Amino acid sequence: MAASLRLRGAASGLRYWSRRQRPAVASLAVVCSRSMASKTPVGFIGLGNMGNPMAKNLMKHGYPLIIYDVFPDACKEFQDAGEQVVSCPADVAEKADRIITMLPTSINAIEAYSGANGILKKVKKGSLLIDSSTIDPAVSKELAKEVEKMGAVFMDAPVSGGVGAARSGNLTFMVGGVEDEFSAAQELLGCMGSNVLYCGAVGTGQAAKICNNMLLAISMIGTAEAMNLGIRLGLDPKLLAKILNMSSGRCWSSDTYNPVPGVMDGVPSSNNYQGGFGTTLMAKDLGLAQDSATSTKTPILLGSQAHQIYRMMCAKGYSKKDFSSIFQFLREEETF
Amino acid sequence: MAASLRLRGAASGLRYWSRRQRPAVASLAVVCSRSMASKTPVGFIGLGNMGNPMAKNLMKHGYPLIIYDVFPDACKEFQDAGEQVVSCPADVAEKADRIITMLPTSINAIEAYSGANGILKKVKKGSLLIDSSTIDPAVSKELAKEVEKMGAVFMDAPVSGGVGAARSGNLTFMVGGVEDEFSAAQELLGCMGSNVLYCGAVGTGQAAKICNNMLLAISMIGTAEAMNLGIRLGLDPKLLAKILNMSSGRCWSSDTYNPVPGVMDGVPSSNNYQGGFGTTLMAKDLGLAQDSATSTKTPILLGSQAHQIYRMMCAKGYSKKDFSSIFQFLREEETF
Amino acid sequence: MAASLRLRGAASGLRYWSRRQRPAVASLAVVCSRSMASKTPVGFIGLGNMGNPMAKNLMKHGYPLIIYDVFPDACKEFQDAGEQVVSCPADVAEKADRIITMLPTSINAIEAYSGANGILKKVKKGSLLIDSSTIDPAVSKELAKEVEKMGAVFMDAPVSGGVGAARSGNLTFMVGGVEDEFSAAQELLGCMGSNVLYCGAVGTGQAAKICNNMLLAISMIGTAEAMNLGIRLGLDPKLLAKILNMSSGRCWSSDTYNPVPGVMDGVPSSNNYQGGFGTTLMAKDLGLAQDSATSTKTPILLGSQAHQIYRMMCAKGYSKKDFSSIFQFLREEETF
Amino acid sequence: MAASLRLRGAASGLRYWSRRQRPAVASLAVVCSRSMASKTPVGFIGLGNMGNPMAKNLMKHGYPLIIYDVFPDACKEFQDAGEQVVSCPADVAEKADRIITMLPTSINAIEAYSGANGILKKVKKGSLLIDSSTIDPAVSKELAKEVEKMGAVFMDAPVSGGVGAARSGNLTFMVGGVEDEFSAAQELLGCMGSNVLYCGAVGTGQAAKICNNMLLAISMIGTAEAMNLGIRLGLDPKLLAKILNMSSGRCWSSDTYNPVPGVMDGVPSSNNYQGGFGTTLMAKDLGLAQDSATSTKTPILLGSQAHQIYRMMCAKGYSKKDFSSIFQFLREEETF
Repeated sequence: MAASLRLRGAASGLRYWSRRQRPAVASLAVVCSRSMASKTPVGFIGLGNMGNPMAKNLMKHGYPLIIYDVFPDACKEFQDAGEQVVSCPADVAEKADRIITMLPTSINAIEAYSGANGILKKVKKGSLLIDSSTIDPAVSKELAKEVEKMGAVFMDAPVSGGVGAARSGNLTFMVGGVEDEFSAAQELLGCMGSNVLYCGAVGTGQAAKICNNMLLAISMIGTAEAMNLGIRLGLDPKLLAKILNMSSGRCWSSDTYNPVPGVMDGVPSSNNYQGGFGTTLMAKDLGLAQDSATSTKTPILLGSQAHQIYRMMCAKGYSKKDFSSIFQFLREEETF
Repeated sequence: MAASLRLRGAASGLRYWSRRQRPAVASLAVVCSRSMASKTPVGFIGLGNMGNPMAKNLMKHGYPLIIYDVFPDACKEFQDAGEQVVSCPADVAEKADRIITMLPTSINAIEAYSGANGILKKVKKGSLLIDSSTIDPAVSKELAKEVEKMGAVFMDAPVSGGVGAARSGNLTFMVGGVEDEFSAAQELLGCMGSNVLYCGAVGTGQAAKICNNMLLAISMIGTAEAMNLGIRLGLDPKLLAKILNMSSGRCWSSDTYNPVPGVMDGVPSSNNYQGGFGTTLMAKDLGLAQDSATSTKTPILLGSQAHQIYRMMCAKGYSKKDFSSIFQFLREEETF
Repeated sequence: MAASLRLRGAASGLRYWSRRQRPAVASLAVVCSRSMASKTPVGFIGLGNMGNPMAKNLMKHGYPLIIYDVFPDACKEFQDAGEQVVSCPADVAEKADRIITMLPTSINAIEAYSGANGILKKVKKGSLLIDSSTIDPAVSKELAKEVEKMGAVFMDAPVSGGVGAARSGNLTFMVGGVEDEFSAAQELLGCMGSNVLYCGAVGTGQAAKICNNMLLAISMIGTAEAMNLGIRLGLDPKLLAKILNMSSGRCWSSDTYNPVPGVMDGVPSSNNYQGGFGTTLMAKDLGLAQDSATSTKTPILLGSQAHQIYRMMCAKGYSKKDFSSIFQFLREEETF
Repeated sequence: MAASLRLRGAASGLRYWSRRQRPAVASLAVVCSRSMASKTPVGFIGLGNMGNPMAKNLMKHGYPLIIYDVFPDACKEFQDAGEQVVSCPADVAEKADRIITMLPTSINAIEAYSGANGILKKVKKGSLLIDSSTIDPAVSKELAKEVEKMGAVFMDAPVSGGVGAARSGNLTFMVGGVEDEFSAAQELLGCMGSNVLYCGAVGTGQAAKICNNMLLAISMIGTAEAMNLGIRLGLDPKLLAKILNMSSGRCWSSDTYNPVPGVMDGVPSSNNYQGGFGTTLMAKDLGLAQDSATSTKTPILLGSQAHQIYRMMCAKGYSKKDFSSIFQFLREEETF
């Protein structure tokens, strides 16, 4: 397997470079046209809100794409741009030996890989399959086993950062898989993200993302509770935030993404909780953390509670607001 | 009242300076002897683990002390050093117009101020009474009202930082009270701490401390849960900590005081959870947060849960360990 | 004290009888007129939603009343009926040696007993003071101490059952205080309730009520969660209720007061959650449970959470609905 | 399919009778020998702590058995008694058209049905497959679909009641599946249990059990918290239990299975929490409830917390104690 893998992407002659070393370019059109001829095509399955801009960043870096999405409309834009659209994941696997999948749930990922017309039906030996979906790490491990049986390589590489980061190519990728294949993954992921972190064996990319987001949810709710309590006890919100940020309560949610309107500029709390990372998505990630904790018998007392809180918020009209709207949710006043 | 207050501390001729401006001195002995003659005495009530080193720092800065503690043994050291020991808080108030109280609970503070031989029995008009105990902000407000009736000034100034910071004079004080009196408080508190923060009206010092510690408890438990889950899912603890610290899960508990043994040096988790901030003390502060939240009808979903978790830990043998031992508590393995 | 107490109520010649032994009477008017002349007056302080019907039941049993309420309008109805209205709690104590207080909060109770014109200003030796307010048991104990110093007797006797039970004289009283005085208390309480339970020393009446209501809140939320989950998993609500009620999940909330509309008749859930026991009141009782648990360092993991849930419901428009509306609160559907 | 199913069990000539209608019999031996000849064999897969006594009850009612367990030792006893032991689930399906499975986890059930040598490899059309394992209802539905494709019938029938009830034939079965087949299932299940409840479509048996046990866990913890708080507030445990049981806090955990030692006889709490329903098993069922709630996006605030509490207890040495030992867990005293 190693032998065949070594050939992958060789035509491009590129090595991975970090964002900082990347040279300023005269025009994207030039870059794209110049390299178009020399790169082997990359498969991309799942052209949703995140997949769409991610795929476009691969195009900008000169990779011809083999495209598939269950919704044909999602492919039209790419077809118009000259990329090749096929009719099932298996056909993607037939035409490309590097494939990126970006799908909403574990079930969609299983279907794309192991379904009747899934990747595994026609995957070539030595192919590199990178799943950027956020799914249960146990599912990632299962998929990896099946992929390995076919002589190919699977890596999980979920992303952190929303649609904005996807557009600007500033996503963070947390990558799990065989370490030897990491640089091959970096070549592609580096076109879409500014941080590509190696986390360990298959599934650890998902694990890292899930753990980070669980801690994020907990500290965001904690920040909202502490700010709300302080305000009710007579503290000025800006002053309280300043005190927390120079003390042991400091966290990303308090110093970079404060949930209280008016405390910071340029964050969702100061824009009526528009944009950012939706409550629905946080609830989904906490569901994955819960599943992983249940199956590994790991106690997550606050993580469970955070899951339930975001679940309730979804049912109370907050599903599309940024997850920092927990402050608004707690803030609603009693009227008696 | 303002008039009489303006005189306070005038004999010393000192203005408050920040730590950074403070000149290097040849020897503390010289400083102490030089200023000893010129400063008016300061009362100090409560010479426990924290009060003892705090009072000593006042001595080092040349303040003669009027001392009282319910346990006579606690005063002996100061008597031997030539400070004046009296037999009740009222007698302290008779001999000093600036008094610092450092007591373990609301009940002790009420007794020291309003008890049969309390400060209020003999307090002089214009006196400055600074309570550094960590107590219910509602109690601070009550005490302030009673003190004000006597023509004196009350400020709440709870501290952050443990016995070590008390010894080295590096405590943080969070001060609530009339803003005009803040500089007078700073003069004394600056001898014992490196940060003296003005938080607003009486009670807001307590409020700021309580809110910070509640958020600290929540993010510490969250960090322990996330680290534990990640480890069980196969992540290396140091790598996971690094990923969290460059991501949105970052918090003081993850980047400065990581609860997982071996991840950081010089923190309690790498010293069998010795030293630091005891679980019992955290449980006490969370009880105050709970009381404040209940009386103001403020929802604190995770704060309540954190309170219960630290309460349980106290009952399971963790009361004297540092509060980061929540990781060890969660970590205990099932044996089936 | 015992001597003077022995005289109390002797004029009435009545002994306490249980409801079951009580003879059917020809007409209440007859009973009232017959005994009116021979009974000593009873003081009643607090004529709110609960106090009003309770006081009327005492009238029906022939007790002349000495009435006080902070809102004069609340007394008018009684004045019109010929009862004596006075202008402060102290005046009640001057004219009656048995007094019942029924007040909304600890603060109101403290004011009524220890305030500037409180009961204690004029209470007679040997008086029996029964507080039916639901308040912190620690406050009950404090009041009892002060009352005892005056040579009188204090009992806490909070009620279970709402306005309906107050009207029909079917309240349950949970009584704490000296056992020797219990039968004297029973004489009055038996006019207003069908169950008068002796719980132990002063404060245990409150403790029993708080513990019951905490367990009630927990099992109500649990029932709502279990019914909601079952329904989403495809079970018929009536069938599920039947299965739970013949199994180990059975509880008062599932078999007597089921929170799911349509499962039972004659309960608030089948009347749009009108009537019954309001969410606000449950939140108040859970606050008392929380306070007691905090001060006794007792872990109440689910009790704390139940408190927070009812607190949140109050802020989300459920404050006046019956507390079984937790089902509706959980039921609100996500819309994505 | 209906046609072939109609024939099933016809040889026995028996209809289902309820326990109450069952005639007293002279001797079990007589019953067994009489019917032995006329009954068609029943397959039984999974002869563990529960499966063993369940299978024996089928034997007592005259059913010849076809036996399989992954541990050959578990089958020996049945082989010695003359029952037929085979080497895989497929072979059971070849020899019996009614099969009962009793397995510890979802994974075991999937293996027994869909594995390489699973039931589905040789299942006959019209067979009745009853799974009494407690597993994820989503898995039950999946298995049912696969079974249906083979022209056979699947029912989920998890049990309530422990090893004692299994021995005495007093289990409760909660049955999900096509209603027309319920009487056929009753014929067999009635030999092993005294209550056979029809719950609805496939999966609802599991759903009913999961919901009941979640509510049970919540009310047990609630009872333990309320009893513990009451005791610390000075109430006598027996008196408190009596008060709760005549009030709205009443539940199965308070009136039938009280967790406080000494309050009731004949329950695990009065036998050092030996016997009963182990904490590990409760934690497993709560994990299933959590999984079902997560996948259906159902908020279970207290259910989640109960899950975490039992998970922690498992890690603190309570895994084999009865689940009412939560009282002991909460009771452990702080020592400062």
